[in-house]
Amino acid sequence: MKTRIGIMGYGNLGRGVEIAVNAAPDMELAAVFTRRAPETVKILSPDVPVVHADDAANWTDKIDVLILCGGSATDLPTQTPEYAKLFNVIDSFDTHARIPEHFANVDAAAKEAGKIGIISVGWDPGMFSLNRVYANAILPDGNDYTFWGKGISQGHSDAIRRIKGVKNAKQYTIPVESALEAVRAGENPELTTRQKHTRECFVVLEEGADAAWVENEIKTMPNYFADYDTTVHFISEEELLRDHAGMAHGGFVFRSGCTGVNKEHKHVIEYSLKLDSNPEFTTSVLVAYARAAKRLYDEGQRGCKTVLDIAPAYLSDKSGEELRAHLL
Amino acid sequence: MKTRIGIMGYGNLGRGVEIAVNAAPDMELAAVFTRRAPETVKILSPDVPVVHADDAANWTDKIDVLILCGGSATDLPTQTPEYAKLFNVIDSFDTHARIPEHFANVDAAAKEAGKIGIISVGWDPGMFSLNRVYANAILPDGNDYTFWGKGISQGHSDAIRRIKGVKNAKQYTIPVESALEAVRAGENPELTTRQKHTRECFVVLEEGADAAWVENEIKTMPNYFADYDTTVHFISEEELLRDHAGMAHGGFVFRSGCTGVNKEHKHVIEYSLKLDSNPEFTTSVLVAYARAAKRLYDEGQRGCKTVLDIAPAYLSDKSGEELRAHLL
Repeated sequence: MKTRIGIMGYGNLGRGVEIAVNAAPDMELAAVFTRRAPETVKILSPDVPVVHADDAANWTDKIDVLILCGGSATDLPTQTPEYAKLFNVIDSFDTHARIPEHFANVDAAAKEAGKIGIISVGWDPGMFSLNRVYANAILPDGNDYTFWGKGISQGHSDAIRRIKGVKNAKQYTIPVESALEAVRAGENPELTTRQKHTRECFVVLEEGADAAWVENEIKTMPNYFADYDTTVHFISEEELLRDHAGMAHGGFVFRSGCTGVNKEHKHVIEYSLKLDSNPEFTTSVLVAYARAAKRLYDEGQRGCKTVLDIAPAYLSDKSGEELRAHLL
Repeated sequence: MKTRIGIMGYGNLGRGVEIAVNAAPDMELAAVFTRRAPETVKILSPDVPVVHADDAANWTDKIDVLILCGGSATDLPTQTPEYAKLFNVIDSFDTHARIPEHFANVDAAAKEAGKIGIISVGWDPGMFSLNRVYANAILPDGNDYTFWGKGISQGHSDAIRRIKGVKNAKQYTIPVESALEAVRAGENPELTTRQKHTRECFVVLEEGADAAWVENEIKTMPNYFADYDTTVHFISEEELLRDHAGMAHGGFVFRSGCTGVNKEHKHVIEYSLKLDSNPEFTTSVLVAYARAAKRLYDEGQRGCKTVLDIAPAYLSDKSGEELRAHLL
């Protein structure tokens, strides 16, 4: 029997989940839920119903795992605990500082309802997190380095768009190649914010806006840009839409540590991602953990989990025997 | 209360475990077991007893986890099931083809005794395996690539030493840089054995041996060298001991796959290790999994496990709260 998946919210993430579920031989898409008028939402799967979010409670016996595809700022903090009362749920909540609070809320709701919830699934938090945990456990005497990019940062792009005179903007976060090389070589460098990443901005101005003033506003913006070497390019909206609509992203997690009686042996662990589509990779991770959620639930596990609490074998559609024979 | 570790066998691995356990704040070394005369074995830890392996059964109530530090060819196939009758055990069994059989033996012994056993812990099998499983689950439509090196292959060095006229030898396995680059660029190349690795041999001849004949014997040896581009250097024993005594190693695991309605988005996941000391890194992994073994046992888990069956959080000495707040 296939694992029946529901999707809550049909944007880039919802669509990515749909594609990944349809590609998985052991899963089937049961329904897509939306807060829009269902008849206005066109999905890729011809035979799957689009249902209003208000009717989700009628689907509890037709869905094994509901994947929440909303945003971390306003949707997930309320949605995940709410739907954990009805379904096993998974989300990609990525506001690192608020994870402990979100975990507590989802844990309480899921335990009371006898469901399982897996939060903060994706690549960071997600695959990067578990690489940090594995590497820290193996090399306790060492340093962590996480680099992001090259890829568009939504938060930084939004910050530029809020400046007066800016019509549209995209901001790329770019790791500094010399910093990557120093870490990779085991030099254990102490890196300032400026030494780790640069920021490159593509900005469309409103008619009559003062380019020099906007550039200065960007480059001196505290937290977002002041501590970085920032480049600003002014381009037309046509160029922005044509050349900067991609959703590529990626990054690097390093642990550099030492062992030996006199700490004489250095070791470098590196994990990296190069992604053509940030949302589709994220949803591929979500769908693998949906498989795990169903299995853990069937084993009697309840409450909130993260990727750190789930053994790798639960993500695979292969049996333990197959994994040991072919991938171990 | 600290996790009490026993070490069975005191070579490079046993010594590496000793160093890693002494560096772990939540562990203590209870005893080192040896098949040699105990008084002839000098260990690093002044207050830890060295005990004959025959007396291990007297230590069952003083040891939480016994780490088996023997070899995969002859020691571990019998030792791990044998000691799983007395202790929770961990080993680094690395004969990939025999893992299913070894798993079954350890599982039967551990279940009968009410113990836990974790086998094939290290980096390959081990960290490389779990990276293969994670990446396969996330990108089901893709290709796996594993490269090893640069590092000494014990098996290939031994094969050279068996040739008539060879006094001593070391063989390095080296990944082909252009192959790494093609995989990293998402080109999904089909690579022959020759295109993935080269082999470099440093050979000390017996007096009067025929260098040209030995070189040909090496380069045409089936399975070991015939399918590779192999370089042979003849050097003095002094040079071999001085320049090729290191135990550096490493390697790369890639998963290159695609997502999207028309498979239009490529993704590359890369995991790599650069290790100054192969045995010390292996033992660092063993010790992290010893921590997991104790916890799983305390939770009531029994039988044989591999790294694929164990959630990342079990390896860490930090609590779930700490991990979620700082590493997730």
